[in-house]
Amino acid sequence: MLKPFFRVSSPEAARNQLRHFGALEAESTGIDEAVFRVLAKSIKADHDSPSFDRSIMDGFAVLSMDTFGSAESSPSLFNVVGEILMGEIPRIRIQRGEALRIWTGGAMPPGADAVVMVEHTQDLGGNALEVVKAVAPFDNMVRKGEDYKKGEELLKKGLRLRSQDVGLLASLGLVKVEVHRTPRVALISSGDEITPVEEIPPPGCVRDVNRHSLYAGVQEAYGEPKWIGLAADTLKSVKAMLNSGLEQADLVVISGGSSMGSRDHVIQAISEAPDSRILLHGVSMSPGKPIIIGMIESKPVIGLPGHPISALVCFDQFVIPIIRRLAGENTCESFLRPCVRAFLTRNVSSKEGRQDFVRVRLSVNEGEFYATPLLAKSGMVSAMSRTHGFVKIPMDCEGFYKGQKVNVYLFSNWLGGEFEKEYFSGDETAKGSPGNLDGAYRQEQLSGFGKNPNS
Amino acid sequence: MLKPFFRVSSPEAARNQLRHFGALEAESTGIDEAVFRVLAKSIKADHDSPSFDRSIMDGFAVLSMDTFGSAESSPSLFNVVGEILMGEIPRIRIQRGEALRIWTGGAMPPGADAVVMVEHTQDLGGNALEVVKAVAPFDNMVRKGEDYKKGEELLKKGLRLRSQDVGLLASLGLVKVEVHRTPRVALISSGDEITPVEEIPPPGCVRDVNRHSLYAGVQEAYGEPKWIGLAADTLKSVKAMLNSGLEQADLVVISGGSSMGSRDHVIQAISEAPDSRILLHGVSMSPGKPIIIGMIESKPVIGLPGHPISALVCFDQFVIPIIRRLAGENTCESFLRPCVRAFLTRNVSSKEGRQDFVRVRLSVNEGEFYATPLLAKSGMVSAMSRTHGFVKIPMDCEGFYKGQKVNVYLFSNWLGGEFEKEYFSGDETAKGSPGNLDGAYRQEQLSGFGKNPNS
Repeated sequence: MLKPFFRVSSPEAARNQLRHFGALEAESTGIDEAVFRVLAKSIKADHDSPSFDRSIMDGFAVLSMDTFGSAESSPSLFNVVGEILMGEIPRIRIQRGEALRIWTGGAMPPGADAVVMVEHTQDLGGNALEVVKAVAPFDNMVRKGEDYKKGEELLKKGLRLRSQDVGLLASLGLVKVEVHRTPRVALISSGDEITPVEEIPPPGCVRDVNRHSLYAGVQEAYGEPKWIGLAADTLKSVKAMLNSGLEQADLVVISGGSSMGSRDHVIQAISEAPDSRILLHGVSMSPGKPIIIGMIESKPVIGLPGHPISALVCFDQFVIPIIRRLAGENTCESFLRPCVRAFLTRNVSSKEGRQDFVRVRLSVNEGEFYATPLLAKSGMVSAMSRTHGFVKIPMDCEGFYKGQKVNVYLFSNWLGGEFEKEYFSGDETAKGSPGNLDGAYRQEQLSGFGKNPNS
Repeated sequence: MLKPFFRVSSPEAARNQLRHFGALEAESTGIDEAVFRVLAKSIKADHDSPSFDRSIMDGFAVLSMDTFGSAESSPSLFNVVGEILMGEIPRIRIQRGEALRIWTGGAMPPGADAVVMVEHTQDLGGNALEVVKAVAPFDNMVRKGEDYKKGEELLKKGLRLRSQDVGLLASLGLVKVEVHRTPRVALISSGDEITPVEEIPPPGCVRDVNRHSLYAGVQEAYGEPKWIGLAADTLKSVKAMLNSGLEQADLVVISGGSSMGSRDHVIQAISEAPDSRILLHGVSMSPGKPIIIGMIESKPVIGLPGHPISALVCFDQFVIPIIRRLAGENTCESFLRPCVRAFLTRNVSSKEGRQDFVRVRLSVNEGEFYATPLLAKSGMVSAMSRTHGFVKIPMDCEGFYKGQKVNVYLFSNWLGGEFEKEYFSGDETAKGSPGNLDGAYRQEQLSGFGKNPNS
């Protein structure tokens, strides 16, 4: 009664399979809707910026050589010949010994090559001005084209836009921008024991957790989730849902039924679709081993394990990279996560040849983070909410010791009040080493270890 | 002609002023719209989960004591008396020497206390089954209430929901959840030289970058941006825009005009509003010194410097924490950022008593990150897009040396293909220290250093 065994891939080999998937087509969007979207074309400057020599301080435009040697004890004297108004292109050419009042952002007058900050001047009345500090050429000003030059490539195709990139697009005068279409992700749950959330599960059944956690996960990945439905444990039902997903979305994710039991129909449903291909079935990781990555007419179809925690770990490791690729990014990784260095409060063991994701709960004591592994079985739902992040145990390692400092990758960009201050504390004083990054990283391997409490 | 000097606050003191602001009122939302929202009420379980003893493997439900001593060389023999179907509550009580076929997620029969995985059995034909591996009590099953128990507090008020928390809400049977209202953030730009993006700037003018970069920034902070308009450099215009912002939003952000020059009307506009208070004017940081944090009838009003880079740094350090507080989180910090350890490629200096944010561009060489400071003047827009993150120079430090390893906080949760693999490389093998976290952190202070190239 031995089940067929998986021919599992290493996480690295599995990740390489993701290169089969590429960017969706481009569309145009307004720059105020462009943050988090991925550029479909590189952006070049069509003008110099600034388009004129520009002051970056309130003060006086001068010839820098006229300030040579100026100090509190030996001020130099200037004749103020006028003021440059904002938005005005000055015509007056500055002569030796002359100064023009100028504001931050104002255009430099011909002849001037520096700005003296107002703080370093004394108004002597009339038009007389004392300068008490010397300036070097181009001090307190930006030269034409110093920010960027006409023809320069400023933003590369494949960049996911951040707030500062949107600002740069605005500076370039672009009201719209070409980005890749947002990936639509079809979500299907499967299993006869799965009950919709609004119903009380009949005896022996459980509520559909994956539908909702993955719906949120797609939003976290900047995708557009589409709920397709709940498939029964029959090949026919799985096939019908799969076809519906393929019609409505760019990527289909089915949770449950990805293993090799008699109730597991996902692999067959994909295989029997026309123009289909199984790229992967099984990865040497825990949780999450029985994952399927398939392809139907170039669309990715992913079978995730049904256990909510396994499903989320697989989603993070493989589905998010696919969503990113469809969105136009050239990566095989999930999004980066903030990482803290923490002492383990107990031993954690793994199997050699398998990558383990151990969920941990953080605590802080005397400026140090401590990570407690939560030994939850994979059917449990609350354990993921009780934890802050995970520790990765590499394939060639049998575990980590209690007291060892390890990387904890956080599930989110927030931790809750008391921990967040700690996260940044490494930089807030100069008194030696920061708490969260101190110490040499000893990655000793455990051997002769017992059972993995996290399997 | 000395300008009035700021009485600047330390970043720490400034941050404490943010405690004046608290959570907006609660509203109800569907769980599929709840990710990134902040819980307004703690969530308790109203039932045990699982509600029955549950198998977490495909195999056979048995009495664990019957498997004692089982091994490949000395299997124990069982009589298979039936199968537990999914969604069925089994009535058959297991007797000594009996086994019931069970599936992952199936309900355990009375009498059984463990599941033997199908991989560790041999079907001998008829109803005879050999078990080749012993199981301990409760192996491969989850007990009633082991995930969570009725009455237990599972999610705390003030938690910003992650995908796993949404899954837990689903498990609890909650279709809707109480969260705080999403903060509406009014955005105003000011300055006579500021031109809307769709227009070609007249001589001496520049396009309105802040309107769009901050609009994106509010989205990055899970807020709802509202564009109010462009104010001229008059008190009347600033006041009119401010009033319009206060009517439409929970927080008003004005960029430009926050300093102390004759064109800077924001401080006066706030002060002259009824029931107003200036909490802060000026912080000892660079860029970003001339920030204003005010309060009109309990609503926060923020004046940001007009330079796009300064505006974004201040937005990150002070406006995002306020948005988070309005949204219901109890924090004074910005969102956490992924952090890499990188070698500086040149010296960076700072002033003691000032916190510096030095933008750097990353590169990778032989598994190590290198950070090159971008010496951009603060009026430049492209520099923020050319960089990946920032290095913080603490207040009591005059700078860092070339070759020193420092924390680089990334602007985003993505870096682009080639760097992302590197980010996680510390965990991917067990061959000694990971590249991005290795080495002791030497935070030596520079002294007798020259001019700060980043001021």
